[in-house]
Amino acid sequence: MTTETAAARPAKVRFGADDLRALVAGIFAARGVADADAAAVADALVWANLRGIDSHGVSRVPRYLELFDKGESRPDAAPTVTRPRAAVAIVDAHTAPGPVAMNRAVTEAVSGARDCGIGWASVRGTVHTGAIGYYTSQLAAEGMAAVGVVAGMPNMAYAGARGAAVATSPLSVAVPADRHELVLLDMATAVMALGRIAQLKAAGTELPPGVAVTADGEPTTDPAQAKVPLPVGGAKGSGMSLVFELLASGLVANPIVPGYHAGSPEGRRHRQNGFLLAVDVSAFLPLAEFTATVDATVDALKALPPSDGAAEVLVPGERGRRSEADRRASGVPLGAKVWRELSTAAEVLGVAVPTPLGA
Amino acid sequence: MTTETAAARPAKVRFGADDLRALVAGIFAARGVADADAAAVADALVWANLRGIDSHGVSRVPRYLELFDKGESRPDAAPTVTRPRAAVAIVDAHTAPGPVAMNRAVTEAVSGARDCGIGWASVRGTVHTGAIGYYTSQLAAEGMAAVGVVAGMPNMAYAGARGAAVATSPLSVAVPADRHELVLLDMATAVMALGRIAQLKAAGTELPPGVAVTADGEPTTDPAQAKVPLPVGGAKGSGMSLVFELLASGLVANPIVPGYHAGSPEGRRHRQNGFLLAVDVSAFLPLAEFTATVDATVDALKALPPSDGAAEVLVPGERGRRSEADRRASGVPLGAKVWRELSTAAEVLGVAVPTPLGA
Repeated sequence: MTTETAAARPAKVRFGADDLRALVAGIFAARGVADADAAAVADALVWANLRGIDSHGVSRVPRYLELFDKGESRPDAAPTVTRPRAAVAIVDAHTAPGPVAMNRAVTEAVSGARDCGIGWASVRGTVHTGAIGYYTSQLAAEGMAAVGVVAGMPNMAYAGARGAAVATSPLSVAVPADRHELVLLDMATAVMALGRIAQLKAAGTELPPGVAVTADGEPTTDPAQAKVPLPVGGAKGSGMSLVFELLASGLVANPIVPGYHAGSPEGRRHRQNGFLLAVDVSAFLPLAEFTATVDATVDALKALPPSDGAAEVLVPGERGRRSEADRRASGVPLGAKVWRELSTAAEVLGVAVPTPLGA
Repeated sequence: MTTETAAARPAKVRFGADDLRALVAGIFAARGVADADAAAVADALVWANLRGIDSHGVSRVPRYLELFDKGESRPDAAPTVTRPRAAVAIVDAHTAPGPVAMNRAVTEAVSGARDCGIGWASVRGTVHTGAIGYYTSQLAAEGMAAVGVVAGMPNMAYAGARGAAVATSPLSVAVPADRHELVLLDMATAVMALGRIAQLKAAGTELPPGVAVTADGEPTTDPAQAKVPLPVGGAKGSGMSLVFELLASGLVANPIVPGYHAGSPEGRRHRQNGFLLAVDVSAFLPLAEFTATVDATVDALKALPPSDGAAEVLVPGERGRRSEADRRASGVPLGAKVWRELSTAAEVLGVAVPTPLGA
């Protein structure tokens, strides 16, 4: 391991994606997660790193282990599925890690969509789902237009209210293309994603205005004072978060917001609910015709003159695709803290630790 | 507002909602719209006025008449419906006015949802749909959680591009409640709705920063210079607009964005596409249990301390409900220009003009 100094920004070390997957899968398997599920969690987390969403990547491993320790997630939980109607499935995660439950929802949403034209799969009572674009991307690869939403613990302001009131519940929409990669929107309902705020806080960098407020609800750009992220567009972002909670949590009878604000230990226990909607494009028109339209739409936008300060016009998911190409080639960079936590966890569990690239 | 400004502004006249409905239905019927369809258009427009969304209300009547004149909408168009799969319907509007086509989509979405648990209805090739919360509200009244999206002609900036690139495509989500009224989100993907910008422009009032840019793409707060509204949250708002276009227009093989930017007369012809998704709550859990959760969630948010400057915590749709209660009691206020246009159209067509309230 490299030696760090407090003064210099610690250098990042890079790892091959396959090596990282094996490491993370090994850690989860050693904690009692079935091999296939451990591999599923590893793939979801490393995908986020490849796409440049490091806040949802392997840095989350210690948090999963903590949830196992506290009994808030069970390594051996096996999701169960009910299908009350032809196009609707409910996946009860029984506290299984997010990727295990959400992958099952992908399968169920596709099944419903192939049968009925659209398919809905709710996920009840999971923990950390990671980047939900991972799941909607899988649906797009099956020829589906896909919508995904996850609701979690309140950590964001609600327009007009003081303090953390609702979650930064993300929305993802994935649409398959042909020449272009899929269009992949994956956005938090906050102005700035929590992970990005945490990065700026860690670096002591001033926040842009309008991103967060203090514990007292005062606007601030001081990273040390910023406690509660603000919703994007005020009432729009917090309104989306509210309806996502009602759809994701209310429909599976596992509401998060009322219990959280009641303040009971049970109400404050970490949990997430979510849903995926798959729309089978071929029910509407031939997939090739649809993807040609998507390509033409992307072409039309990318041909527009860039606005001042923009080098080019990008579509949702394009930055992530470039990150993935780069990181597949040159490795996934991990900060010193993340790597220390991962390698320590691996050593404690007797899991082989990979060698950094170029070492 | 100063006294001078108030005095200079022409007074609004108020009309009973039933009188306005009869007036608008009469105008449409006189232009060749079937009586039931004319009544449907009138109800949708007056609903928007009642809810305080005047930009989507009866002020739109002259625009519909203009579309009839130009042949861009046919008064006698009869939407046709195909149901390629059990949960999917496609309503081809054949240029029928938005409410005629969208009401049919409501019926079809409910039918699919009762059958399969969720139902999707696309609308192809309509014009002005009005306020889409009108349609999602109808779905909520049937015990459905509902999502609605409409895509139209580009009139908003896309993050990183210059000029109007995508539409201010709205998203509506409606969720039924019990003690509370339904939660009704109905939001444009722009920072500020076009109608509100137009109101400020008409009044010569400075715009807030970050709302619009000039024709050259420069940020401006000058209402005379503001030409292109900005998307909410930058890439988030314009990304939502893009995927809404792909879902609403791409799935019905009627893309708007590529043709618009190609600049052909056909590409610039006004048209809209949309879709409604109905989720049958009773497929998941008893409706009463769900609506109790919605009530509890609304209660939890409304019990939070208001932030500085907020008198109380509101949920989406609450302001509209209050407007509706007020305007049902005291009438719908219309500006002088709107009333002049409506009464002129009525007189030309031989339709009886109602008397203002209190006159």
